[in-house]
Amino acid sequence: MKPKAQIVNLPVYQPGKPIEEVKKELGLDVVIKLASNENPYGCSPRATEAITAELGTLSLYPDGSAADLTAELADQLAIERSQIIFGCGSDEIIALIIRAFLEPGDETIMADQTFSVYKTNADIEGAVSIEVPLINGKHDLPGMVNVITDKTKIIWVCNPNNPTGTIVSESELVSFLDEVPAHVMVVLDEAYYEYVTDASYPASIKLMERYPNLVILRTFSKIYGLAALRIGYGIGQQEVISLINRVREPFNTGRLAQVAAKAALKDQEFVAKCRQRNAEGITYIQQQFDRLGLSYFPANGNFIMVDVQNPGTEVFKSLLSKGIIVRPGFEVYPSYIRVTVGSEEQNKAFIGALEQVLHEVNSPA
Amino acid sequence: MKPKAQIVNLPVYQPGKPIEEVKKELGLDVVIKLASNENPYGCSPRATEAITAELGTLSLYPDGSAADLTAELADQLAIERSQIIFGCGSDEIIALIIRAFLEPGDETIMADQTFSVYKTNADIEGAVSIEVPLINGKHDLPGMVNVITDKTKIIWVCNPNNPTGTIVSESELVSFLDEVPAHVMVVLDEAYYEYVTDASYPASIKLMERYPNLVILRTFSKIYGLAALRIGYGIGQQEVISLINRVREPFNTGRLAQVAAKAALKDQEFVAKCRQRNAEGITYIQQQFDRLGLSYFPANGNFIMVDVQNPGTEVFKSLLSKGIIVRPGFEVYPSYIRVTVGSEEQNKAFIGALEQVLHEVNSPA
Repeated sequence: MKPKAQIVNLPVYQPGKPIEEVKKELGLDVVIKLASNENPYGCSPRATEAITAELGTLSLYPDGSAADLTAELADQLAIERSQIIFGCGSDEIIALIIRAFLEPGDETIMADQTFSVYKTNADIEGAVSIEVPLINGKHDLPGMVNVITDKTKIIWVCNPNNPTGTIVSESELVSFLDEVPAHVMVVLDEAYYEYVTDASYPASIKLMERYPNLVILRTFSKIYGLAALRIGYGIGQQEVISLINRVREPFNTGRLAQVAAKAALKDQEFVAKCRQRNAEGITYIQQQFDRLGLSYFPANGNFIMVDVQNPGTEVFKSLLSKGIIVRPGFEVYPSYIRVTVGSEEQNKAFIGALEQVLHEVNSPA
Repeated sequence: MKPKAQIVNLPVYQPGKPIEEVKKELGLDVVIKLASNENPYGCSPRATEAITAELGTLSLYPDGSAADLTAELADQLAIERSQIIFGCGSDEIIALIIRAFLEPGDETIMADQTFSVYKTNADIEGAVSIEVPLINGKHDLPGMVNVITDKTKIIWVCNPNNPTGTIVSESELVSFLDEVPAHVMVVLDEAYYEYVTDASYPASIKLMERYPNLVILRTFSKIYGLAALRIGYGIGQQEVISLINRVREPFNTGRLAQVAAKAALKDQEFVAKCRQRNAEGITYIQQQFDRLGLSYFPANGNFIMVDVQNPGTEVFKSLLSKGIIVRPGFEVYPSYIRVTVGSEEQNKAFIGALEQVLHEVNSPA
């Protein structure tokens, strides 16, 4: 039984340690996870209510076309229903786009470093990932234009970028799109879209008419607080969405995910409140980093990437022993860790623990 | 933006009509859907309780490795945890196997007619599907062996077969497996496994040791009544499961799906009751078909395929007008419809409506 040659050396996913396991191993009562950019305020109560109301229909397949949810979202975004595709998280939309468009030898351009799922899926198809280094943690859009060839099929712009949190502005994006040939797809991954408060951030949906090669990804896993349910979406021209739909499994999103997402969309007050509290959290954490003399990338999502001036994996371990889980291990930024902006209490606990850890590292016994 | 040539002509999924829409269009108060092989008895109350208990953690990502659920299932099946992979329905496992193993020009063998997802996914990879006609609605296993070539990578055996409901026996399967070269994967799709009462049905898991090229698919969408949540699984040798895992998205099953499936596994009394009632439903429906002079394939799942001696699509429309939704449109069997075994009341309503429809067709005004 011979698999595709290119998948044999792909890493098997290594799950993070569950909170309960960390508690047990380290004998801790309280463990705070700031590693997966989850919403510390949960989700809208309307989403939970919608699920409870749907519990009598678990034996029935979901609507494969997610018609109700699609209608609600299309109305909110003022686009056509045929311009939307839902997936098992926006992760799945990435996989579907790549499965539909990339063939062995095709090239796809992305930042180094950015969300890892683009490259993994390109690898599966035997496509070549051209990685363009970030500049000060930010996408080098002119540099990405420079590496476009006849073989380029898709360019990925993660905005805000995961893990650095930086954004490209509307004017930067427009200059870039003007240079990209019309036959090259540009995927704007906006998983953290609703968190951004910077006025220069692109109004990307409005750009779609001018740039029909633009595809936008968003999710219910972040500010909407529905990561458990696995639902995200892609937006693009009808023709592109129709092509992506051809490789979608008929029932790729669950019934509870669909009703919860629809209810969550209707509670924009919850979204606004989370955005506000997140912005306050960013301000607090950045002030503390300044006080500690640590540099960091300007944060636009619900996470901050900070230079801890020591091996990130070591600081991660020390924080873990104090019950705080963060994300280390960025190849390009070995002295950085990525921390999710939590609740006020969680942010204070993180800063307190970090200060202790850095003190211990810098003044060894 | 040029997609893979082979996906352009793939059909875009056409969703079935929702019950509410059929009611509105036809002015009907009651509509009975016997088209998707859903469990008419819902799911175990333990599954619903498990979901309710989990509603406080919707903002947290699921455990990507589904460790708790995997442990429970491995114990029940007496296999290693590393032999199991979960997916967004067993549909996704089919897609993952094909994405990991099939390349352009590879051949894959399946029955004609059988579950359509095998061929669609093979088409996406540019692989060639070799379809071997059923004999009396049953897999022609010797015929499938005869078309094995050097290019054959995977053979699909849907058991019970969807849509015909027939099974291959353990002795037939073993004779077949003895003829299949060790480098050809055999996927046994057992989505309806728990419904089968025929003693000749293979104890497939026990065969895995002798035939390491065997992969088994099962689901929580059928007898477990959790189709809404999208969760199914594959079982195989650790090495094969590890390869399939390489193309799996990290969070492909939801948190609620995992807890509900685990709870459902623990309620085997519910499963036994559903199997018993389904068997009674099959007996009733087959007796009625006999009375009406209709031939049918021996049913082993929770559905029956019957020759209505008229174009199936016409009988479908007439049944629809009486508020009964069934499944027509089988290319190889144009005069057949597939009907899900419902509750006693639903089965009676179906037979009553079918009798009327056939009477009307045979005695036109």
